[in-house]
Amino acid sequence: MPSEITNYIQENKDRFIGELLDLLRIPSISADVSYKPEILRAADYIAQKLREAGADNVALCETPGNPIVYGEKIVDPSLPTVLMYGHYDVQPADPLELWTSPPFEPVIKDNKIYARGACDDKGQLYMHIKAFELMMQQNTLACNIKFMIEGEEEVGSNHLGYFVAQNREKLQADVIVISDTGMIANDIPSITTGLRGLSYHEVEVTGPSRDLHSGLYGGAVANPINILCKMIASLHDENNHITIPGFYDNVEELSAEERAEMAKAPFSLEEYKQALNLGDVHGEASYTTNERNSIRPTLDVNGIWGGYTGEGAKTVIASKAFAKISMRLVPHQTSEEITEKFQKHFASIVPPSVKVEVRPHHGGEPVVTPSDSVAFRAASCAFEQTFGKKPIPVRSGGSIPIVAMFKSELGLDSVLMGFGLDSDAIHSPNEHYGVFNFLKGIETIPYFFQYYAAMSK
Amino acid sequence: MPSEITNYIQENKDRFIGELLDLLRIPSISADVSYKPEILRAADYIAQKLREAGADNVALCETPGNPIVYGEKIVDPSLPTVLMYGHYDVQPADPLELWTSPPFEPVIKDNKIYARGACDDKGQLYMHIKAFELMMQQNTLACNIKFMIEGEEEVGSNHLGYFVAQNREKLQADVIVISDTGMIANDIPSITTGLRGLSYHEVEVTGPSRDLHSGLYGGAVANPINILCKMIASLHDENNHITIPGFYDNVEELSAEERAEMAKAPFSLEEYKQALNLGDVHGEASYTTNERNSIRPTLDVNGIWGGYTGEGAKTVIASKAFAKISMRLVPHQTSEEITEKFQKHFASIVPPSVKVEVRPHHGGEPVVTPSDSVAFRAASCAFEQTFGKKPIPVRSGGSIPIVAMFKSELGLDSVLMGFGLDSDAIHSPNEHYGVFNFLKGIETIPYFFQYYAAMSK
Repeated sequence: MPSEITNYIQENKDRFIGELLDLLRIPSISADVSYKPEILRAADYIAQKLREAGADNVALCETPGNPIVYGEKIVDPSLPTVLMYGHYDVQPADPLELWTSPPFEPVIKDNKIYARGACDDKGQLYMHIKAFELMMQQNTLACNIKFMIEGEEEVGSNHLGYFVAQNREKLQADVIVISDTGMIANDIPSITTGLRGLSYHEVEVTGPSRDLHSGLYGGAVANPINILCKMIASLHDENNHITIPGFYDNVEELSAEERAEMAKAPFSLEEYKQALNLGDVHGEASYTTNERNSIRPTLDVNGIWGGYTGEGAKTVIASKAFAKISMRLVPHQTSEEITEKFQKHFASIVPPSVKVEVRPHHGGEPVVTPSDSVAFRAASCAFEQTFGKKPIPVRSGGSIPIVAMFKSELGLDSVLMGFGLDSDAIHSPNEHYGVFNFLKGIETIPYFFQYYAAMSK
Repeated sequence: MPSEITNYIQENKDRFIGELLDLLRIPSISADVSYKPEILRAADYIAQKLREAGADNVALCETPGNPIVYGEKIVDPSLPTVLMYGHYDVQPADPLELWTSPPFEPVIKDNKIYARGACDDKGQLYMHIKAFELMMQQNTLACNIKFMIEGEEEVGSNHLGYFVAQNREKLQADVIVISDTGMIANDIPSITTGLRGLSYHEVEVTGPSRDLHSGLYGGAVANPINILCKMIASLHDENNHITIPGFYDNVEELSAEERAEMAKAPFSLEEYKQALNLGDVHGEASYTTNERNSIRPTLDVNGIWGGYTGEGAKTVIASKAFAKISMRLVPHQTSEEITEKFQKHFASIVPPSVKVEVRPHHGGEPVVTPSDSVAFRAASCAFEQTFGKKPIPVRSGGSIPIVAMFKSELGLDSVLMGFGLDSDAIHSPNEHYGVFNFLKGIETIPYFFQYYAAMSK
């Protein structure tokens, strides 16, 4: 049944999509400093669109890193205030050769928008700007709104904590809304109620002081690649438990009832394997796939390199080998605790024939958001209104470290209204975001504002 | 005491070195096909210099790969014939950032020539061309000589075997001389009497069909990097024995006497560790460092890569991980046997959650050359003449696969008159070759010809 909201979306959707494509054309990669000008272009674009939509006090707030875009619309100080958070930076796009269309030349295929950042998070944050425009145009903005859109999420939100601490007054709100997560399926809406934390490290193993000929030295000196492989292999036992001493000390153990409740979420192992072309799944003994990637902590190598990686054969023993190793954390683990345990353990297993250096990157805390708050109920009703089904609360395996930081710095809970899908290939080649999801988000958000205002009275 | 030989070298050494530097300026990297024009330039340069030195029938012999430079001087069919082998191709030069001067802009520092190929093998092969020039100029060439200088040694001499088989008549000789090995030290001359073989593979482990977000999938799907590390780690046991079934079946075991004889070669473990800045050596239990890198087979990862290797942090689970893995073989092992055993074993240890592909590169056979032949004795006397010390026979850990091929195809033994040093950093950044060694080679080679002719009578 068409509503004022769906009518407005129908009339403006081509422009909405066109504006998103323009944003996606900006390669705002935060991990590589050479893209800094693009970061600034993306921030300017967001600021401009916030102004056009009707936001006041729009500004690029300088940080020692990338600027945070701020904007607000205070309708009435007596109304509840929603703080919207998103990020305009994106992951690096490599390996480029696996993209079927260039990552920063967005195309629409099968009603999906293909581009780096399409879902994470440009597509999802832009829904909020367009929903805001809609509410402003229809004069239905039922809450005050503040936007805080940063440019360093993909590299650890290094300067957001300081910004938040310095701007507690300005950021005062009643709830935070974030669209940077997913749903189970387009016909099975869900709301994320838990996120894993993160501890990320780069390790460097050094053997001989220079690269050596593997014939003359092979067998007599430690090969740092072989040693690194052995060290990495030893981090999991035969049951795929992580062997770092004390790693599980603080892990929240769910009750049998809670696990049974989780197991009710629709899931087909066969479809999961097929979608990824897996011979089999692989993970910690005694846990299901959905438990392994949500309520259990994990350790993965995100990158490894060393020695000769070019064409052909080179018989070399490298002087150094490197890996990026990250751990996803669950409630009651802290990134500080795990970072310390990892560093200590990794240094303890190094043989005397090599040296090792562990450099921690950013970390983030795991979080569980309440599913009985006014804000969660308002979000639930909004999804039910637009999808025709009550959304399922689910724990996600991803990390949005700033959720825990917002709680500690601002005392605010977040509602994770995500419209992405696991198959959107975020952080991967051919990232995409459904046009359905983009427009459904723009439709759902105004209902959240209505319900939240009504329920807060 | 100056001789005719040393006088000629003294008068011409600046030109000799200048010509070698010109050759070193040509980046004739065989592992990368984009350097093919440079390969041809190097071959032309060698051919030109052979002609200028007085060789007949100089030609670039076409192969499906890189050409083989041939040249000869038949003084008298009744004299013995020496077939000189060398290679004008070089290893890739990366990692470029570790070179203190550009690899193809040779410089002389501390009386050493720094450039890729300075020692391996341009510097060593060029000694033979200049020694030949000297003997021609002084009318002292006591044997017939044939040159066969190839351009694919660093990528497995793929087309040399076919060329040799097709040209048995043309290549007829009494002995082969190769300068592509080293000595113990400038004041401890040695002659190599054994070389290890090689079995080289590239392995590719595939997990999920696309790169995945490590938060959403971490813990639930096999991470191909972690799996590859586990597979590589399992290839050695806690004593650093190789675990491939049957790997040691055919390994030549030396007697206690032979090992005691080997142990007499001058060696300081402390100096060895210091030269490479090693905390400790590392290798197979129950064997010494010099045994580990000569009479024992080994397995090394020569390169590994997968996932995100750029700046900063990316939370990805890669779809694929790769490694280049090579084994050095000792007498009675064959590359065919070990290649088969490796492939079978590596495929057998792969868990069902990933797929693995093993692609063999080139191989080569181990070899022991006689140390009681006329040619060996002639070489020994030549070294004694110019160094004032009898050279020590030693087994080297490197591989020159064509030595075994020459034996089987031409029925000829090789004499490995190498003038390099282990510290020359061949295959590494800052490869260099001593000016002393270059000139000493040019001085020693004519004596070999004299002694070989005299002893063959």
